[in-house]
Amino acid sequence: MTRITVINPNTARAMTETVGRRARAVAAPSTAVAAVSPSMGPESIESHYDEALAVPGVLAEIAAGERDGTDGYVIACFGDPGLDAARELAAGPVVGVAEAAMHAATLVGRTFSVVTTLSRTAGRAWDLAHRYGAAGACRGVHACDIPVLDLDGPGAREAVADLCARAVREDGSDVVVLGCAGMAAFCDEVAEKAGVPVVEGVGAAVKLVEALVALGLRTSRRGEYAPPPPKRYSGLLGGFTVGPEGQTLRQAGIQAPFSTT
Amino acid sequence: MTRITVINPNTARAMTETVGRRARAVAAPSTAVAAVSPSMGPESIESHYDEALAVPGVLAEIAAGERDGTDGYVIACFGDPGLDAARELAAGPVVGVAEAAMHAATLVGRTFSVVTTLSRTAGRAWDLAHRYGAAGACRGVHACDIPVLDLDGPGAREAVADLCARAVREDGSDVVVLGCAGMAAFCDEVAEKAGVPVVEGVGAAVKLVEALVALGLRTSRRGEYAPPPPKRYSGLLGGFTVGPEGQTLRQAGIQAPFSTT
Amino acid sequence: MTRITVINPNTARAMTETVGRRARAVAAPSTAVAAVSPSMGPESIESHYDEALAVPGVLAEIAAGERDGTDGYVIACFGDPGLDAARELAAGPVVGVAEAAMHAATLVGRTFSVVTTLSRTAGRAWDLAHRYGAAGACRGVHACDIPVLDLDGPGAREAVADLCARAVREDGSDVVVLGCAGMAAFCDEVAEKAGVPVVEGVGAAVKLVEALVALGLRTSRRGEYAPPPPKRYSGLLGGFTVGPEGQTLRQAGIQAPFSTT
Amino acid sequence: MTRITVINPNTARAMTETVGRRARAVAAPSTAVAAVSPSMGPESIESHYDEALAVPGVLAEIAAGERDGTDGYVIACFGDPGLDAARELAAGPVVGVAEAAMHAATLVGRTFSVVTTLSRTAGRAWDLAHRYGAAGACRGVHACDIPVLDLDGPGAREAVADLCARAVREDGSDVVVLGCAGMAAFCDEVAEKAGVPVVEGVGAAVKLVEALVALGLRTSRRGEYAPPPPKRYSGLLGGFTVGPEGQTLRQAGIQAPFSTT
Amino acid sequence: MTRITVINPNTARAMTETVGRRARAVAAPSTAVAAVSPSMGPESIESHYDEALAVPGVLAEIAAGERDGTDGYVIACFGDPGLDAARELAAGPVVGVAEAAMHAATLVGRTFSVVTTLSRTAGRAWDLAHRYGAAGACRGVHACDIPVLDLDGPGAREAVADLCARAVREDGSDVVVLGCAGMAAFCDEVAEKAGVPVVEGVGAAVKLVEALVALGLRTSRRGEYAPPPPKRYSGLLGGFTVGPEGQTLRQAGIQAPFSTT
Amino acid sequence: MTRITVINPNTARAMTETVGRRARAVAAPSTAVAAVSPSMGPESIESHYDEALAVPGVLAEIAAGERDGTDGYVIACFGDPGLDAARELAAGPVVGVAEAAMHAATLVGRTFSVVTTLSRTAGRAWDLAHRYGAAGACRGVHACDIPVLDLDGPGAREAVADLCARAVREDGSDVVVLGCAGMAAFCDEVAEKAGVPVVEGVGAAVKLVEALVALGLRTSRRGEYAPPPPKRYSGLLGGFTVGPEGQTLRQAGIQAPFSTT
Repeated sequence: MTRITVINPNTARAMTETVGRRARAVAAPSTAVAAVSPSMGPESIESHYDEALAVPGVLAEIAAGERDGTDGYVIACFGDPGLDAARELAAGPVVGVAEAAMHAATLVGRTFSVVTTLSRTAGRAWDLAHRYGAAGACRGVHACDIPVLDLDGPGAREAVADLCARAVREDGSDVVVLGCAGMAAFCDEVAEKAGVPVVEGVGAAVKLVEALVALGLRTSRRGEYAPPPPKRYSGLLGGFTVGPEGQTLRQAGIQAPFSTT
Repeated sequence: MTRITVINPNTARAMTETVGRRARAVAAPSTAVAAVSPSMGPESIESHYDEALAVPGVLAEIAAGERDGTDGYVIACFGDPGLDAARELAAGPVVGVAEAAMHAATLVGRTFSVVTTLSRTAGRAWDLAHRYGAAGACRGVHACDIPVLDLDGPGAREAVADLCARAVREDGSDVVVLGCAGMAAFCDEVAEKAGVPVVEGVGAAVKLVEALVALGLRTSRRGEYAPPPPKRYSGLLGGFTVGPEGQTLRQAGIQAPFSTT
Repeated sequence: MTRITVINPNTARAMTETVGRRARAVAAPSTAVAAVSPSMGPESIESHYDEALAVPGVLAEIAAGERDGTDGYVIACFGDPGLDAARELAAGPVVGVAEAAMHAATLVGRTFSVVTTLSRTAGRAWDLAHRYGAAGACRGVHACDIPVLDLDGPGAREAVADLCARAVREDGSDVVVLGCAGMAAFCDEVAEKAGVPVVEGVGAAVKLVEALVALGLRTSRRGEYAPPPPKRYSGLLGGFTVGPEGQTLRQAGIQAPFSTT
Repeated sequence: MTRITVINPNTARAMTETVGRRARAVAAPSTAVAAVSPSMGPESIESHYDEALAVPGVLAEIAAGERDGTDGYVIACFGDPGLDAARELAAGPVVGVAEAAMHAATLVGRTFSVVTTLSRTAGRAWDLAHRYGAAGACRGVHACDIPVLDLDGPGAREAVADLCARAVREDGSDVVVLGCAGMAAFCDEVAEKAGVPVVEGVGAAVKLVEALVALGLRTSRRGEYAPPPPKRYSGLLGGFTVGPEGQTLRQAGIQAPFSTT
Repeated sequence: MTRITVINPNTARAMTETVGRRARAVAAPSTAVAAVSPSMGPESIESHYDEALAVPGVLAEIAAGERDGTDGYVIACFGDPGLDAARELAAGPVVGVAEAAMHAATLVGRTFSVVTTLSRTAGRAWDLAHRYGAAGACRGVHACDIPVLDLDGPGAREAVADLCARAVREDGSDVVVLGCAGMAAFCDEVAEKAGVPVVEGVGAAVKLVEALVALGLRTSRRGEYAPPPPKRYSGLLGGFTVGPEGQTLRQAGIQAPFSTT
Repeated sequence: MTRITVINPNTARAMTETVGRRARAVAAPSTAVAAVSPSMGPESIESHYDEALAVPGVLAEIAAGERDGTDGYVIACFGDPGLDAARELAAGPVVGVAEAAMHAATLVGRTFSVVTTLSRTAGRAWDLAHRYGAAGACRGVHACDIPVLDLDGPGAREAVADLCARAVREDGSDVVVLGCAGMAAFCDEVAEKAGVPVVEGVGAAVKLVEALVALGLRTSRRGEYAPPPPKRYSGLLGGFTVGPEGQTLRQAGIQAPFSTT
C-alpha cells in the first residue's frame, strides 16, 4: 500500500474534493490517496502574496503527513508553492502539479501551451517552466481570466476548453497543459475541443509520486534538501520550531501546536 | 493489463535479459513487460555510428509491437536512439531511458551526475541533457571506460560504484544517474557507495510509460509527431516502405518483410 | 525626507542592528532608515524551510510600513525572501539584498564570486543569479559553513575574508559579493584581503531604493505586481486577509491583528 | 584536385541531379564533385522516420567514398542526417547543408528566416539551429507545405519565393535560408522577390568543405569523433560490421557487401 | 561633493543640454554634474559606424575627466559606446544609460519594452540586453523611426509616447524604457499615455553612479578592466598614446594633445 | 580574380607581413590578397581601449578598399574590432578572424579551446564566443601572457604550443583555436604538440570570404547593416563624414582626407 497525500494549498474545500477525485481516479489500486487542505491561509491562490502565505499551511500538512507515515506528496496548485521547503521536510518524494504537468507534456509532444486562470499568474508559470527545464518547450501561457473559485461556475469549463483550442492553434503547439488544479475535471472537454493531448497536473503528479515510490527514490538528503537545521521560531509561527537531532522531520519533529485536521 | 515493450537497441541477448529483469522488477502487477532486441544492427552501442545503425532495428520492433497491440515502449539505451521516429510510429507513448532518468533525477534532487561507459559517449549524454531541459541540473558526465559488453565482467560493478561515489563528491551533486542500460542491475551497490539516490533509466522509463498509459496520454499526433507520410523505400531497407492511408502505423502498416523474433 | 525600511527577515535582533548600522552608514543625509525584524518566524535563515516561513513576517512588516507611509523597502537576507509578494503590497519600490548586490557587482566588474554561509544555501544563490540575469557573471558560490548566528563570533570575520580572497583567486573573478546580510560589517577586512571591490547587499540595496525613489520609480501596478486581489485568510494566518477595494495595500488594507513592534 | 562527394540522402535521382548541378556551379575549378544517392532508403525525407532510415544509406556512401579517396563530403538534406556518424567514418571533413547554410547566413546578416517544405520538419530545423549555435539568429521557420518531390512541379518555385519574401518581412530578418536541398535551384527567384541575401545550403556546404580541405582541417580524431570501435553487426545490417584495427574507416574497413553505384 | 561627468557621445550641443538638464534634475544636492560632448566625432549616433567613431571622443572626455578628478561617469547614448574601454581608463565607476535603464527596469517590473529611434538600432539594444542579463525581461524593442536630431521637433514627443503606450500593450510588459538619451525629457508624457513606470537612462545612470560612489565601489582593477598597458599610437590618433607606469590613467597619463573644451 | 583585403588593425608592420603571408598561403590561385594596416591607432591590441581605438583605422581601410573595388575583407585581430561598422560600409562580405576560427572549429569538432595572449583579453574571447553561437562549444580560454609584439620573439612559439597541448588535455576538447592573429605562423608546431586540429583565424577567414564571394553572398543591406546614414563628423574625425545619397559607401563616399597607404 502506497500512501500519497495530495495537498490543496488553499482552504477551499470544494477544490480539495475536486483534486481528491481526480487523484483517486488515476491512482493505482494499491495507492491510498488522502486529499487535504491546510487549516490556515488563503481561500484561493491568485497572487505572489497568496502563494507565499499558502506555504506555511502546506508545510504543516507535510509535517502532519510525516507523523502519519505518508509515502509521498503532491502539492496541488500550479504555482507549486513551498516545493523546496517541503522536500527538506518529507522523507518521501514531493512533486508539484506544474512540475509534473510540464515533465509529462514533454514526454508526449515537443511543445505545449499552458492555459491558466488570471493573467497575473502567467509570470509564475514561466518562472516554473524555466526552473523545470521546460521553457524551450513552452510556446505560450494563456489566461482565461476566470478567478480560481469560479472555475466550477457555469460556462467556465467551456470557456477554458475554447481557450485551450485557441492556444494550441495560435502557438502551433503539440500539447495543452491545464494551468490550475481547479481545472482537474476539465480534461475530457478540453481534449475534445483542442484535439491534442491534455495534461492535467494533479493526475500527472500522483502517477509520478507512485513511480518514484515504486523505484525506491526519495529526495536526496545531500546538500540543498537536507532536513532543515534545528531552529527556534517565534510568535504566530512558533509552532514551526525545528527540534534538535534527527535526520528527517519524522524523527526530529516539528513542535507543531497547530491543528491540521 | 498494460503491455509495455522494452527494446534493447543492440543485439546482445544477455543485455536484453538484464534489462527485462529490471523492467519486470519495478513494473506494476498489472503490467506485462516484453523485453526484445532487434534482428539487425550492432551488438553494442558505443559510437554515433553504432547508434545511428541501431535505429532501423528499433523501428522494426516498434512496427512489430504496433501489430501486436503494445500500449507503450521503452528504448533501453542511454543514447535514446530513434526516439523521435519511434514516436511517429507508435500509437502509445515511447520513452527513452536517458530521458526518463534525467526527468526522475530532477524530481529528487537539484543536480545530478551521470556515469557512463566510454568517454566518447559523454557528448551524446550532454546533447540529451540539453534536449530534455536538464543541462542546468547536470553537473558532470563521467566515463568508466569499460566497454558495454564488459559491464557484466568481474570488477565492473565495483568500478562503476566507485566512480559514482567520486562523481557526486567532485561534482557536489545530489543524485547519480546510471548512464548505460547495461548498468540496470547496479543500483544497490552504487547507492551504498555513493550515499545519494541512484536513478536507473530502464526502471524509470517503465514507470513513466505506465504513468502515461494510466493517464490516457499518447504522443500528440499534431505536427512533428504525426504518422510518417506514405513513402517508398528501396534496396536493403525496402521493408520499411510506408503504405498509403492510415493515421497510425497500426492502421497504415509498414510493409515489413523482416523478422523480429 | 525619504523613509526606507530595512527588514531583517529573521528574528535575531543583533543582526537587525548590524544591518541597520550598515544601512545608516551609506544612506543619504535626507534618508531616514528604520531597521526592523518580524515578530514571527525563524531566528535565522538557513534552509528553504526557514526562508519560506520568514515570508509572513516580512509581509507583515511591509503592511506595517505601508500604514506608516514608508517610501521604499530593503529585504535584508541574501535569499530575498518574499520579494515578489512584497512588491505586490508596497506602493514604493522593494529591493532584495542579493538582487542589489548582483546588480551592483556587474557595474564594477565582468565577473563576481559569492561567499555565503552554509553550503546548502548555494543553490538558492544560483537560482537568484539566474533570476536577476547575473548567472553568466557569477563565477562561483562559496560557503564558509559558519552558521548565520555565529558570524559575529570570534574568527568568523577573518575566515570569511580568507575565503573571499581564495574565491576570487580560484574563480578568476573581478568582484566579491558578500552572500549574507550578517556579513554587512565585513567589507573592510574582505577588501584588504581579496584585493578587489567588495559588494555588500544591504548597502547596495539602500542606495538602489534611494535611487528609485529619487527617480519617482515605483513597482509597476500592471500585470504581475498588481495589488493582491481581496481574499479571505483562515486560521493562524487570518490576519493576512485582504480587504475589498483599493489599488494598493495602503488603501485596501490588510486586516492585520499581528503586532510588528 | 579536391574530390568532394555530395550525398543526397534520399533515393530520388532527380534531386541528386539538381544538387549535383548546384554543387558544380559553385565549386572551384580544382574541385571534382561527385553527386551520389544511396542504394537503400526513402525516396524523400519528410519525417523523423524517413530521416533515421536515410542514415544507413548515407553511411554506406561515406564508406564507398573512403575506399575511393574522397577528400570531403556534403550531406545534402536540410536535416543533416547522419552527420555525427559520418564524421566518425570519414578521414576528411563532412558538412551538412543546414549547418553550412546557418553558418553562412550569420556571416552576412544578424538574423535569418528559414523556409522549409512540410510544417512537421520545422522542429528539426530548430533543433539544428540550437545545435549549431544559430538559434538566437533564427527568427522563424516557415513551411510552404509542398512535398519534397513536388518542388520541381509547376508553381513550386514561385510559391517558395513568395513565402520567402513574406517570411523576411514578417520576421524582420536580414537573410533567408532555403530549408531543403530540393530548393537548390531557387536562389535567383527568391533573391529577386525577397530582396535580401539568399543562402542555399548545398552551395554553402561545398564551399565550406573546400575551405576546410584547403586549410588542412579534418575532423578531430580525439574523443567523440574517433573512428567507431570494431563491432559485429547482424541481420539486414550485417554489412556494416566494423573490422578490427585501423584508425579511420579507410584503413579499418567496413565489410560492405551493399552496392553503392 | 560628488563630481559626475555626463558624456553625450555625439557632438550635438542641444542634446548635451537636454541630457545635462535631466541629470541635474535627479542628482543629489551634493552632486556636481558636468555635461560634456566630445570635440570630435558624429553629430548623432544612428549606426554601428557612428557608434564606433563616437568612442574616441568619449575616451578623450574620460581622459579629461581623470585629469580633473571626476568621481564617476555616465555615457549618455543608448548604445553605451566605449563602456568597456572607459572602465579601463577611469578610476571611478562608469555607467551606460542602456545599462542603467535595463537594471532599473527590472527592479520595478518583471518585463519591459524598449522604444528606440531608428529600426536599425534595435539589434544593438538586444545585444546590450543580452550583455546586461536583461534579455529574458525585454519583451520587445520598438522603433519610432524618428532621427535622433529630430526628437526635439514638433510631434516627436507625442509620437514616442503613443508608441510607448502601444509597445507595453502589445508586449504585455510592465515597464517602458526610453531607448535614446534624446528622449530624456519625455518621461511625463510617456508615463501619462503608457500607464506604467517609465525608465529613462540618463537619470537612472546618474543615480547609479551616485550610489556606487557612496558605497566606495570602483571598477575592479583586476583582470579585464585593469588600466590599458603602455602603448604607442600613431597618426591621427597619436594623442591616445598611453605612457609608461601608473595604475590608472590619472597617474599614468594619456598624452592627449586634443582639446576637449 | 577575387580581391580580398586583409586588415591588420594595429600598426605593427611585422604583424601585417605575418598575416599577409598566412593569407596568401591558403588563398586560392584566383584570389589577390592585399594585407594592410592603418595609418592611425595602436601598435598592438591588448585592451578594450586599444581595440576601440583600432576601429577608426580599420574603417579607413575599408573606405579605401571600397574606392578600389575590393571584393571582401578580413579583420585580422582576434577581437574582431569594428566588424559591425565595417559591414555597414563594405559592399562585399567582411569576416573577423575570431568569427572565422570559431565557425571552422565547430565544423571539425564538438568542442574547442582558445589560446590567447594576455589574460585580460579572455573576456573579449568569451563575449565573441557568445555572439557567434560558439559559447557552448568553447571549453576554455587560456592565456600565455606573452605580449602581442613578443610573439615572434625567442621561445614564444614553443610556449604557445605547450599551452595549446595543455589546454586541450585539461579541457578535454577536440580542437585548439589560436586566439591572436600574431600566432598565424604557429600552426605546425601546435598541431604536432597538441595532437588535434589547429584552427588559425586568418586562414579560416580568407577561405570564408572566398566562399561567400563565390556564392555571391554579400552583407544584407536590410536593417541593421544598411549603409550608415549621411552624417557630419567634427574635429579630429572630420574625415569620417558620410556624404549624402548612395546605397553603399562605394557610391555614397566617405569624405576621407586621411592617407591609408
